This record gives sequence, C-alpha cells and structure tokens, in this order.
Amino acid sequence: MTVEIVSENRSHGGRQLVVRHASSATSTGMNFSIFLPSQAEDGGRLPVVWFLSGLTCSPMNVTEKGEYRAACAELGLIFVAPDTSPRGDDVPDDENYDFGKGGGFYVDATQQPWLNHYRMWSYVTEELPELVAAEFPIDMGRQAITGHSMGGHGALTVALRNAGRFRSVSAFSPIVAPSQVSWGQKALGGYLGDNRDAWRKHDAVALIEDGARVPEILVDVGTQDQFLDQQLRPDLLEKACADAGIALTLRRQPGYDHSYYFVSTFMADHLRWHADRLA
Amino acid sequence: MTVEIVSENRSHGGRQLVVRHASSATSTGMNFSIFLPSQAEDGGRLPVVWFLSGLTCSPMNVTEKGEYRAACAELGLIFVAPDTSPRGDDVPDDENYDFGKGGGFYVDATQQPWLNHYRMWSYVTEELPELVAAEFPIDMGRQAITGHSMGGHGALTVALRNAGRFRSVSAFSPIVAPSQVSWGQKALGGYLGDNRDAWRKHDAVALIEDGARVPEILVDVGTQDQFLDQQLRPDLLEKACADAGIALTLRRQPGYDHSYYFVSTFMADHLRWHADRLA
Repeated sequence: MTVEIVSENRSHGGRQLVVRHASSATSTGMNFSIFLPSQAEDGGRLPVVWFLSGLTCSPMNVTEKGEYRAACAELGLIFVAPDTSPRGDDVPDDENYDFGKGGGFYVDATQQPWLNHYRMWSYVTEELPELVAAEFPIDMGRQAITGHSMGGHGALTVALRNAGRFRSVSAFSPIVAPSQVSWGQKALGGYLGDNRDAWRKHDAVALIEDGARVPEILVDVGTQDQFLDQQLRPDLLEKACADAGIALTLRRQPGYDHSYYFVSTFMADHLRWHADRLA
Repeated sequence: MTVEIVSENRSHGGRQLVVRHASSATSTGMNFSIFLPSQAEDGGRLPVVWFLSGLTCSPMNVTEKGEYRAACAELGLIFVAPDTSPRGDDVPDDENYDFGKGGGFYVDATQQPWLNHYRMWSYVTEELPELVAAEFPIDMGRQAITGHSMGGHGALTVALRNAGRFRSVSAFSPIVAPSQVSWGQKALGGYLGDNRDAWRKHDAVALIEDGARVPEILVDVGTQDQFLDQQLRPDLLEKACADAGIALTLRRQPGYDHSYYFVSTFMADHLRWHADRLA
C-alpha cells in the first residue's frame, strides 16, 4: 500500500506525522495523523492508542489541540487519529455540520447516496489497523481506544464489538446512545435506513443491553457541556453498565464544556490509565 | 476601561479567556488571551508570563497549540498572549504575510500609512499591562516575558528596554537582529523609515551593542528551522551576549522546525525556568 507523508514535525522528542493513503474502504484518499515517540526508534514495537474524533473534526483538531504528545513521549505510546469521514469533491455531503463530511459516525452506510464512500466502520476497524501495523512499529497485541463526542461513540462501539482486541477503552464526552438522541437518529437513519435493528450495532447502550461486554470503561464529561443532556446522555451508559456489571468510571468534571480545552485537560490522565493497562 | 469576555473555557483547572477591548494605542479593538490558573481564585496575586506571538499569528495560535496550561496550572502562573498587530477593515495592510496585519513587529510606526494604528510597542509595553493589572489578579512585581519568532524579537527588545521590569526573558526561535535580515529590514523600514538609528531600538543585538542589559536569556531554536540562517541568526545574539557578558543559554534543538510542534515541546521547560525566577 502506498502511503504519503503529508507532513512531519519533530515534537516532544518524537515524530508527528500526517499520512495520506488511498483507501479501498472509502474509495477516497484518507488522511490520518500518527505520533511516534522517540522509543519507536529503538527497534521494538510499541502499544498504540487510537483516538476517534468528533463531528466537524479532521485529524488535525486533536493533533493541534489535544496535548497528547508529552504524555505519549513519557509513556512510550503511539497515538493514531483517523479522519471522521471520507472527503473529496466526489463524496456526497449534507448541508449541516452533523451529517456527511466530518460526520461519518463510524458506520458502513447501506443507504444511497452514502454507501459508496461512507464506510468508516470498515476503515477504522480493518483497513487502517492493517495499514498502520504494516507501516509503523506497533504492537497490535497492545491496543487501546478512545475518542471525543461522536468519536467517543465510535470508541465505545468499536471496543464493544471487538472484544479482546483492545486492552482498554475510554471516552471524552461520548454520544453513548445514538438511537435515543437527535444527532444519532439523523446519522443512523441516514446511513443505515429506518430499520432500528441495524442501529443497535452502532449504539453503545444497545450493544451492552444486547450482551456486548468490556471489563471496564473510563469516561470524562463536563458538567457545562452544551450537548450533555440532549445528545450525550451519560446517564444512559451509567444505567446500562450498572445493569451489565461493567465497571464504568464516569467522572462529571465541574465547569468543563465540550471543547478541546476540556479534552486536553484530561488527555494525559486517560493516556496514563491506558498505559497501565497496556503495560 | 471596558473589557468584553469573548470566550471563556474551563481548562486544566483554571479559566482560559479571550478578551476584547478598545485600544487607545492602536485606535482599534484588540483581542488578547489570558489563562488564569485555579490559584487565581484564592484571593492573592500571581506572577505573569507574557507571550508575544510570531508573524501571521493571532492570540489563538499559542492558545490552542502552545501546551502551556498544564504547566501554568502546576506552577501558578498567569499567561497572557497579545495579538501581533491591529486588526479591522480600517487598518492598512500589506499583501504579504510578513508585514501589516499579523506582522506589527512590536514597534510604534512613524511612517504613513501605518502610524495611526500600528503602535504595538505602546500597546504591549504600556496599555495592555495597565489593563490586565487592573482587571486580573496579577502581581506586576513578578513578570516574565517570552515569545516566538517575531514575538521572540518582541520579548527580547521589550525586556532589554525595560530593565528591571521583568524577572526573566526567554524566546523560541527569535529574530534577534532584524536590522540584518530581510523580514526585519522590510518591517523596520516600512514602519520606521530609512533612518537606521531608529531601528536600533527595535533590534536586540543592536540594543545589547548599545549597552542595554538583562542578566540572562534562555533561547531555544530548532536545527531544522527553515528560517534559521536567513531570518533568525541566533549566532548574532550569541556573539553580542558573549561580548556584553550576558548569560545566554542558547539551545540548538536537533531536528526541530519553526512550528508550534517545536514551541509546545519546550514550553513547559521555559515556564519552569521562568517560575524559578518569579518565585
């Protein structure tokens, strides 16, 4: 597979790359970012943390604002941030920010006109892991996953449906039950159609209700998050985990909002939590 | 003076603000950013670090990409980032990135059409310090200054011409001798005219040659900085400081470039260095 290094910057002793490649999943070019700490130059393979981003984001939001490199350098973690949708003039879009480009919701669309390109589930669970494992010194036996907002939804659903692949899963301000909130209803209805059975495989709360399990989950959410009560609904995850016996650590962080000012505050904390489980 | 809070985000336990006010120095509205760590809520006054930004930047570049908040929260430092020029439709501009809006060079212009608005020296050395001292819990007896590129030039010249005001001065990738490089010659010629005597007051190396002194300076610069040899010329500062007996710590960081991936890498280090001197 051909990969093109779009940019490379030395940072915190390692290499911050933006990489472009032709994706067979999305039938487009795709960009992702990857941070390789200095330990990646020692000849061994390092654990990886996947970060799935939220609505409107490209990989650059977390790459510029996420404040993850210092902790990854200290802990010896590779950090990979995929894009949130296919891109390009040929890719259909929606006029609103919450669907279409920048809003792929980590599903494989089954509906027109989305199904040809909007295959982010296959992209983040199959194609991209194979690519980074081939191109970079990653120990694929030591993977963790996290994400923000729509990407928190992605992290939870990917981890719940791939039991055993990830040593740990966390999320910042995740959408936990897309079937029950307007962002998710629009996206899942648009990409997957009206059959709500298909939605349940892309809904963390529904997956847990249907028997999917991970041993534990760490979630941070801000009490001043403007999307808390209408879109995120951490209370629904709390109930589902309690009923299922999943050890959820849900921290309601006083005064914080939905922005990267919040994500960056708790990023190092999440990375340390993952590193403990990746050791 | 009326100040307007443009945005406020909780971050790293404190408050990240963007503030707008009417400036008498520039005869425009001006934005700056200020981070107030949690210690600012304890009723006392805290030391401040001024960060002057580089060409093309607004206060948002360092605010989003600078990775200063974790260290400021730990060390109890207030962090203020002014804009780099006046802004607005009435403000004259240049078609290139290195002059005009985003490129005020921290001087008070004496030449048409710049002199009505381009008064960044008065703004950052007089008006803004008075404003932040009145509005925020800052101990003005404990100030430090730093900056990046054109802002490193600003930090060095402001500190050298205000001996005793700052406990410490550092810079990332500074322009140290604008009179001797094309960026500086264009800016100082444009804003100040052809009389090179006027330029010397805005040239760190010339100021040192003319007798200005600070006890010590910390400078980081990347060896892969694309502007190193043509615009930054740290060797000129090295020679001037050696001749003047100024304790310069100049660190040539291998592999780093001119970007915020570099600045953010060494930000916490600079803040700790300043905090030691602000204690």
